[in-house]
Amino acid sequence: MTTEAASLVRDVLQEYGSLAQATVRKYIRPREPRSALYELASDYPQRGGRALRASLCISSARAHGGSAADALNSAAALELLHNAFLIHDDVEDGSEERRGAPTMHVLHGVPIAVNVGDALAVLSLRPLLENRSDLGPRLTLRILEETARMATESIEGQAMELAWRRDNALDLREDDYLQMILKKTCWYTTIYPCRVGALIGSRDGTELDRFVRFGFFLGAAFQIQDDLLNLVGDHGRYGKELSGDIWEGKRTLMVIRLLQLASPAERIELGRILGLDRAGRVGRDVKWIRERMHAYDCIAFARRVAHGLAGAALHEFDGAYETVPDSRDKRFLRALATWVLERA
Amino acid sequence: MTTEAASLVRDVLQEYGSLAQATVRKYIRPREPRSALYELASDYPQRGGRALRASLCISSARAHGGSAADALNSAAALELLHNAFLIHDDVEDGSEERRGAPTMHVLHGVPIAVNVGDALAVLSLRPLLENRSDLGPRLTLRILEETARMATESIEGQAMELAWRRDNALDLREDDYLQMILKKTCWYTTIYPCRVGALIGSRDGTELDRFVRFGFFLGAAFQIQDDLLNLVGDHGRYGKELSGDIWEGKRTLMVIRLLQLASPAERIELGRILGLDRAGRVGRDVKWIRERMHAYDCIAFARRVAHGLAGAALHEFDGAYETVPDSRDKRFLRALATWVLERA
Repeated sequence: MTTEAASLVRDVLQEYGSLAQATVRKYIRPREPRSALYELASDYPQRGGRALRASLCISSARAHGGSAADALNSAAALELLHNAFLIHDDVEDGSEERRGAPTMHVLHGVPIAVNVGDALAVLSLRPLLENRSDLGPRLTLRILEETARMATESIEGQAMELAWRRDNALDLREDDYLQMILKKTCWYTTIYPCRVGALIGSRDGTELDRFVRFGFFLGAAFQIQDDLLNLVGDHGRYGKELSGDIWEGKRTLMVIRLLQLASPAERIELGRILGLDRAGRVGRDVKWIRERMHAYDCIAFARRVAHGLAGAALHEFDGAYETVPDSRDKRFLRALATWVLERA
Repeated sequence: MTTEAASLVRDVLQEYGSLAQATVRKYIRPREPRSALYELASDYPQRGGRALRASLCISSARAHGGSAADALNSAAALELLHNAFLIHDDVEDGSEERRGAPTMHVLHGVPIAVNVGDALAVLSLRPLLENRSDLGPRLTLRILEETARMATESIEGQAMELAWRRDNALDLREDDYLQMILKKTCWYTTIYPCRVGALIGSRDGTELDRFVRFGFFLGAAFQIQDDLLNLVGDHGRYGKELSGDIWEGKRTLMVIRLLQLASPAERIELGRILGLDRAGRVGRDVKWIRERMHAYDCIAFARRVAHGLAGAALHEFDGAYETVPDSRDKRFLRALATWVLERA
């Protein structure tokens, strides 16, 4: 990635991220009931995070001729919903850390965490309904339809992943993984922001399905990179417990690759470890899986797949955004396909 | 309650309930992923239940000159959201039974139960967005605004109740209880159905705040009767474990009354029991609380409060529905204020 492209991505993420976060703060202002709801609802959003999804939405709107202000409510709603997903995912995965601090349910227990997640999801409806005054009732409803579709995809993807753990699925292939993250990650992280931005910028004047392939490749590269950082990243910068995915028995691409390459005896051991409850796994189990992943080059394999996906995203970009003229926002969107693998 | 009024309530509940349930079934048709999502999403709705909230919504729409068809999507959405609330509430309360069968998280674990609840909440957006074709974009958005308000009230009420348990609150008064159930129960059970029905029937032509008092009194009488049935009802008909509220440490009106009347020594014992985790409570604890409730006439007290509230609902009814002419639907709505205490 050129220095110029890297600073473009950094600048745009900072500019649009700050805009979105300021709007998010308007909706999570402390009020009663504080100690069991609104103070907690503002916790994850206040822990930082770069608001990538919001920036994608705003830049896609601007690339299509809209203003940042037009897209701001939708971008903030997406961040609120993202935080709702994070809280429920952390409960469902038994995760211990998020953005450098203990997860919501570790701090406040599962009952309150589930309710706070629900609150953030409902709060996300507010800015989407506020769209009405600037964008009019028809476009407001179209955005809500896109949102219902996106949330459905996310929940279906989450259900697939939860079923793999429940059933201790061991016969998974790369395809299964990609289908799961298409739904669980890509729809809300990349596809939806591109679509809704285009919807707003073009005033419902453009066809939205052309963003699915670009969003899928970009989002999949993003997710695999995220899984790699979980395994080999810097804990301080990553903000979650390292190897947390292995502790949680997640079927990442590296685990799926290992399942395919392992010897029969190793496969049995892997099945035993993945079949345990999280509390049943011990440090030795996690260490053994990490060692086997290295022995079979699973990490290098996942890196290659992520590179291939990022390349495909770059290729698809031209088709997805061919109808819009060159602009800083368009260059930013294109640069993300390279940036996604270089972020730490 | 006269025989005539009783059969009116029974007939209308059956008629509108069947209509709403048929619409609900359209939205929860089995599809992939089945075994971890959509088969489970249809579980609670298929367990029965009389769809009281849907019938309230339809009758309020018809009383205001609308048709059942006009209100059907909104009524079905409310039932879907109700089932989403039930699944998350059961997780949050650690409840074991619902409608005569084990709760979702007892059957499938907390992670899948939380996700299925999320799915039902998102599914409820579908019929609300479908409203557009029959009711137009403006009325569709007004209903969505009402829905966001209602869901916010419900979640705030749930947060209040969860905080009482977290903090082992012992200094609660009748007022606190009524404020909590105004938010947690009344908004979505009675106030919202009356408001949205009127909104639809009058085509956004009537003032909605006049339904708050009627809905509050009716919903509060309903909730207290529900708590009484939990304590002294017939398990087969009630469908939840008896005394489940005591096992869960819930601050019902009977518990709050007991806290006020108990001797200092009894209050200490009550505080000890209420402060335990659910798993820490034993049968002896629950039995002791039940005995003390009987000794201090807490059940008779709660019955009196419920009667007072039902009477107030009857009084408020005339103001709430004074603008609409006599009709079967109006008579049904009025009869609910008496029926709510007589249902088993």
